[in-house]
Amino acid sequence: MQRYFIDSTRWDDNEVKITDEDFHHVVHVMRMQEGDSFIANHPDQSAARCKITSVDESQVVAEVEEWLEETKELPVDITVAQGLPKGDKWELVLQKGTELGAGRFVPFQAARSVVKWDTKKQQKKVARWQKIVKEASEQAHRNKVPDIDPVLSVKDFVKLSASYDWKFFAYEETARQHPTVKLHHYFSQIEEGQSVLICIGPEGGFDQDEAITLKENGFQAIRLGPRILRTETAPLYVLASLSYYFEEMR
Amino acid sequence: MQRYFIDSTRWDDNEVKITDEDFHHVVHVMRMQEGDSFIANHPDQSAARCKITSVDESQVVAEVEEWLEETKELPVDITVAQGLPKGDKWELVLQKGTELGAGRFVPFQAARSVVKWDTKKQQKKVARWQKIVKEASEQAHRNKVPDIDPVLSVKDFVKLSASYDWKFFAYEETARQHPTVKLHHYFSQIEEGQSVLICIGPEGGFDQDEAITLKENGFQAIRLGPRILRTETAPLYVLASLSYYFEEMR
Repeated sequence: MQRYFIDSTRWDDNEVKITDEDFHHVVHVMRMQEGDSFIANHPDQSAARCKITSVDESQVVAEVEEWLEETKELPVDITVAQGLPKGDKWELVLQKGTELGAGRFVPFQAARSVVKWDTKKQQKKVARWQKIVKEASEQAHRNKVPDIDPVLSVKDFVKLSASYDWKFFAYEETARQHPTVKLHHYFSQIEEGQSVLICIGPEGGFDQDEAITLKENGFQAIRLGPRILRTETAPLYVLASLSYYFEEMR
Repeated sequence: MQRYFIDSTRWDDNEVKITDEDFHHVVHVMRMQEGDSFIANHPDQSAARCKITSVDESQVVAEVEEWLEETKELPVDITVAQGLPKGDKWELVLQKGTELGAGRFVPFQAARSVVKWDTKKQQKKVARWQKIVKEASEQAHRNKVPDIDPVLSVKDFVKLSASYDWKFFAYEETARQHPTVKLHHYFSQIEEGQSVLICIGPEGGFDQDEAITLKENGFQAIRLGPRILRTETAPLYVLASLSYYFEEMR
């Protein structure tokens, strides 16, 4: 069944109103009519099966038929922080990372980021990124749309990291060391409900100063298997592994 | 250090010759010269650090300095079979699946494959796919370049599946069932050295007849976490989970 994430202002007791882009999707793409049903997600992460009661020129009104008792969210709260990679790679991370359960994305300007962030284009870019994660959340049947931060400096990113229970960074040098601490050594200590920050370098990896700064601020260096992963593949490995450990193993 | 997979015909005792595309990469992209070193991978999965002894107009000759004792290969032999998705998605699976350790890729023409395979274009397409997996293997520092089969019918795919120790297919209906058998229930029974076939549907998933055929031929239906993954994300989840279990946990 089709899903839509609907702003809290459009909910009213047991009624929900669909407008704008979602209106277009319901009426012109899905061609739904009075009597058809869809699932509406509330920003508080609840979800309801709703039946359309009226369709006019700019608005669909539907009534809640049943509140759904389900959660598709990871039992840990995962943030993916990434040294800003090239545009299509970052968009891939946003889309696939959302499917795989990330709760928040934090891009930062790393020393080796090939892309230099243009603050003038910020508003337009972030709007596009938000559209990607909203659509991916709907497609993945999630209860929550991930948050996206604006692009931070390394300094501001380190400040932000202070509030997390667990902080990791993928460091290529760690993949090359042998023997090394295995990822499971850390994951097996994480408890449900804790917050986990995963930090990934841009295309060229972290420079040495960044690696030192991260270590000094409590980040553990991790390896993601023995192979060298591209920057956009690394967060997907971490998210899939966390899902395996928390959702398919325990 | 840069890596190249070099055909067995170009090895001669402790000498290796680089020609064609790799020659271009060594000389014009990396701008290597006499005395510079790189890692050469032999198709038998061994690898050596080699030093360039001569560069002429079409050939680089290098001598083996040291055979490397390393393996970056998963301890299980994983084949990803996929109902042919749209071109860019399949290429993403080839590239990311190679980084994550797949040993073989088998595309097949599923009932719901949007793309219809054009056998006339077969040779050109397969050559492009082989280039993608070769480059991804070099980048990931693997010992082996994955094999790619031509596009099979479902019938021929089922025949091919008979030789595998373990056969799984990702079935959306399984993700929706609750409670369900967890993925770890199966993975924990796989032994090192065994062969594992993972079968993923195209964009629209498997149709009911295909699901029945797969079940009748010994495929177990698995879910990949509670969220619904796009077709190109599903094999990456499986490969990352297997790497976590076999390489980062045990």
